[in-house]
Amino acid sequence: MSDNIPCVILVEPQLAENVGMAARAMKNCALKELRLVNPREDHLSAKALSASSNSEEVLRQAKVYNSTTAAIADLQYVLATTARHRDQTKKVFNADAGAAEIAVRLSNNEKCGLMFGPERTGLRNEDVCLADAVINVPLNPEHCSLNLSQAVLLVGYEFYKTQIMPQPPKLVTNHTRVADKEKVLSFCRHLENRLENFANYKDEHKKEKLVINLRNIFTRSEMTEQELNTLYGIINYLTTK
Amino acid sequence: MSDNIPCVILVEPQLAENVGMAARAMKNCALKELRLVNPREDHLSAKALSASSNSEEVLRQAKVYNSTTAAIADLQYVLATTARHRDQTKKVFNADAGAAEIAVRLSNNEKCGLMFGPERTGLRNEDVCLADAVINVPLNPEHCSLNLSQAVLLVGYEFYKTQIMPQPPKLVTNHTRVADKEKVLSFCRHLENRLENFANYKDEHKKEKLVINLRNIFTRSEMTEQELNTLYGIINYLTTK
Repeated sequence: MSDNIPCVILVEPQLAENVGMAARAMKNCALKELRLVNPREDHLSAKALSASSNSEEVLRQAKVYNSTTAAIADLQYVLATTARHRDQTKKVFNADAGAAEIAVRLSNNEKCGLMFGPERTGLRNEDVCLADAVINVPLNPEHCSLNLSQAVLLVGYEFYKTQIMPQPPKLVTNHTRVADKEKVLSFCRHLENRLENFANYKDEHKKEKLVINLRNIFTRSEMTEQELNTLYGIINYLTTK
Repeated sequence: MSDNIPCVILVEPQLAENVGMAARAMKNCALKELRLVNPREDHLSAKALSASSNSEEVLRQAKVYNSTTAAIADLQYVLATTARHRDQTKKVFNADAGAAEIAVRLSNNEKCGLMFGPERTGLRNEDVCLADAVINVPLNPEHCSLNLSQAVLLVGYEFYKTQIMPQPPKLVTNHTRVADKEKVLSFCRHLENRLENFANYKDEHKKEKLVINLRNIFTRSEMTEQELNTLYGIINYLTTK
């Protein structure tokens, strides 16, 4: 993946035509890498290719994953696009501020992704909680429904603008790099495995909520690999004490 | 026409479906008044109404004109949207600057319009020359073709943004507030107390570094009080297991 542009992750897109139109919108915004999580239809079907309107290479190079976690495993910073308000503690950026944030991360050599949900429902909570923050496109609150390709277009457009305007200031770099999502999630799973007999784990609903809360906490804190190792050490110490 | 929002003028749109989708994009951006110059198809056809997706009133209130000059006769400031470079001496705004210019004109009680050309060819030179300036959406120069509704959406979106206050990114919390520093530090101390015999705690230098690492992690994640309570529960569970 190019280090200087974010990839686009479409989670369970329903219609091949929409995937094609999203590819076209990506090309409009000079985005290149498309990742698809369990697309319902074939993204290389005639319908998809036709809708992509000369952006076939985006579709042909797209990669398909069988889970959102797999699709974001190598990324360090992910924004989830949502229209609805979510019952999660998460930073919410307007599209322009989110695009600026991505530009700063990229200039700091972080691999970034923009995640979009299925056409009808948008992203599920368990996908949103995997993202570092939420990106919201400010639109008429009385009519903010966008089709998938329009959402990709607006967010991509905001990113494109950051690339042609004065560059945002670089982040001061750490000595160790920000952990990628796979490492953060491995840690979360490690912790979750240690909680088997925790009271809240007996109730399936509470358990689900707890898992989402924990993943939010540890995703939001943008840990470095060193910090993750510290936490592993602590968990292991605590459980074997 | 509302004095505070620009009207949208579609010159010779070809497909009813595109007019419907443009109406939908207008509603996304809280634009209301649509003017059509010699549309090829009926803008109230079933295809148009269906494509408008709950924005039928924009179509039903649209006015049809038999010339561009008639459609803009009562306006004081008109921007022409073009993708290609035009051989005309005309001020060219990027979409955001054009939207800002429109916002200034509106606040000065000028009636304003945003003009878009036919799908295939864009605006003809004789229509562009009627506009005060040109508005250009910055996109990938190698692939800048947009469909009509997407052009309306991007320009409308830039205008919509001028109408809302810039929003700083906000942490959305629902049921509980972000914990104050005292609570976060109390939690850190609670955790630190449980680490008494942790290997890294025996070396005073390593201990100091560990404490700083931990406090960084938990400060950066901006936890809510509820999340802190979850973590207390987990630490207690792990240490008494």
